[in-house]
This record gives sequence, C-alpha cells and structure tokens, in this order.
Amino acid sequence: MLKPLPLSEVYCLLEPGPVVLLTTAHRGRANVMTLSWHLMMEFSPPLVGCLVSGANHSFAALRKTRECVIAIPPAALAPQVVQVGNASGRDLDKFEAFGLTPRPAKKVAAPLVAECFADLECRVVDTRFVPKYNFFVLEVVQAWIDPRRRAAKTLHHRGHGTFVVDGETLRLKSGMP
Amino acid sequence: MLKPLPLSEVYCLLEPGPVVLLTTAHRGRANVMTLSWHLMMEFSPPLVGCLVSGANHSFAALRKTRECVIAIPPAALAPQVVQVGNASGRDLDKFEAFGLTPRPAKKVAAPLVAECFADLECRVVDTRFVPKYNFFVLEVVQAWIDPRRRAAKTLHHRGHGTFVVDGETLRLKSGMP
Repeated sequence: MLKPLPLSEVYCLLEPGPVVLLTTAHRGRANVMTLSWHLMMEFSPPLVGCLVSGANHSFAALRKTRECVIAIPPAALAPQVVQVGNASGRDLDKFEAFGLTPRPAKKVAAPLVAECFADLECRVVDTRFVPKYNFFVLEVVQAWIDPRRRAAKTLHHRGHGTFVVDGETLRLKSGMP
Repeated sequence: MLKPLPLSEVYCLLEPGPVVLLTTAHRGRANVMTLSWHLMMEFSPPLVGCLVSGANHSFAALRKTRECVIAIPPAALAPQVVQVGNASGRDLDKFEAFGLTPRPAKKVAAPLVAECFADLECRVVDTRFVPKYNFFVLEVVQAWIDPRRRAAKTLHHRGHGTFVVDGETLRLKSGMP
C-alpha cells in the first residue's frame, strides 16, 4: 500500500543515484524506460534534472505531455530493469511484455509502477536545455512510498549491464541535509 | 600510481551516483567540497552536470576559474567526506584540516586528491543555468584512475549523514552502454 511521502524527503530517494524507471503516457499509450542520468536540483519543492535521449521513444511523450513518473525499483527487479532498458516502446507494450503493472497516478497521466517501492509524479518545468542536451528539469508534485519497503536496496548502473546493489549503511554525524 | 583512464569510460565512474569531492583553486588557494548532486550528460567527450550552491565557498572559484577536479573517494574515506561537507573553505584549509593531500593535475589548476582512487579534471563549458539553478555543465578533459583500486567501493548519500556503501555486483546481459 503506497502512502504519500513528504516532498521535502524526495531527495533522500534520488540523491544516492539509483537506477530508476521513467513512465510516460501519450495518446492513450503508457511507456516506460530505464534512466540513470538524473540529479537533484532543489530540495523543496523538489526539482530533478534528467537526460532523456532523443533516441528514446519516451522523449517525444515527455516533451509533448510535460509529465512523467519516476519509479524506483528494488534490486530484485534488476532483470526487468534491464529488459526495459534494452527494448523500445516504439514496437512494444513494455509493461505487458516484462510483467510490470501500471497504476493510476494522482496528478499526472503517466502511470505509477506497482512493482516499484516509490513513485514520484513529475511535471516538466524547464525545457531550455532540451535542444542542446536533451536535459529536462522536472518538479516532483506528488511522491509515494510503500512504508513496508522503505529500506529496499536499489541498483546503481556501472555500465555495460554491470550493477552494484546497495550494501552496508553508515550513519555519521553530519550537518549536511 | 594513477594511470590515465580513457575519457569514454568516465561514465562508468559517475553514473552509479557516488558521493564525490570537488576541488578548485583560486588566487593560490585550493579548496574541496562534498558533492552528490551530479549527473552524466554525454558519453564522449564526457559531460557532467552538477549543482554547486551559491552558499558554497567553491561556487565563486568554479565560476571564476571555470576549472575543477571531481575526485572519487573510496568508502573508507567516509569520515573525511563528512568533515569536508560540514566545513567551509571560507575559514579553513580543508586539505590540511582533514588530512587530504592535494596533487598537481595535468590540465587544470585545481588539485587531484591523493586519497581518492579516481580523479576527473574538468572545465566548465556551459554556465547558462547557473543564475537560475547553480547548475554547471563540465567537460572532463583528463581522467585518472588507480588501477589497484579500480574496484573500490563508493559512498552514496541518503541524506542526514546516512550513507550506503556499494554491496554485491550483478552482471546482466545488457544492450545499454
């Protein structure tokens, strides 16, 4: 069961640099892609920058609808994450093909992903760097987390299909947010 | 002993989202800060986007000199990484205070960090998003790695001084670069 996550805590999910899924909905069709090139840009309201290549089928949907969902997969979802990254929504319903379940979001048309433990509903707020870099600035307008899976381990992509899974946690006294 | 790393492999170091150190040199003084808000923007030549807040002492040095080094600390350096993140170069020589060793870089004035296992010499190539977001686009012009420490585990920041260390590695058949 998903619960709302305060928007001021969104950075705790993305700052560690996990592989995420990005969903869009365009002309009645949902699509999903794998994304590692993202960063936090502001705590609150949370801004996220991401690189979505023009070669991705999701690019046109993101630019036209100006909405997406960033869904965070647990490490156990690695096989589907790779399948999503290797296929194109041009030819395929990737949700159906790879056993992922779209769920209605609250504020955007793009779907949540039931197999993920957290979902961030986003609106595109700045496209000035899209022509040169395919770089979108997103504002997270609604965030969800499954409280039972809050400590889920995530994936980090090292290139060429090599992923590192979260290991040990360190708690150090920090003045950093 | 550092060896040059091909620039086309830089993304393998940053795409997983590690906490990094960013060094600058300005008016004869070197400084170092902790950074987690970064992303890859292009494979080759490698472009990196990063958020350096105007509240950081490094901000003025980065904007004026248009050069920096991104150094990647191994997990064992966590205590110093946190100390660097909690202090300001306005008041302190953080290299000396926290036992970090600056080494001359090849193409930029900002120093490498001897305790890190990889260093990326960078030039600022786009500042158009600095006024609004403090977002700099960097090009990596020279990369170094210590081959004996190539498999070093890195840190990922989850907020509030909580870090996750790299764990298990998964190798999956991927068409992704």
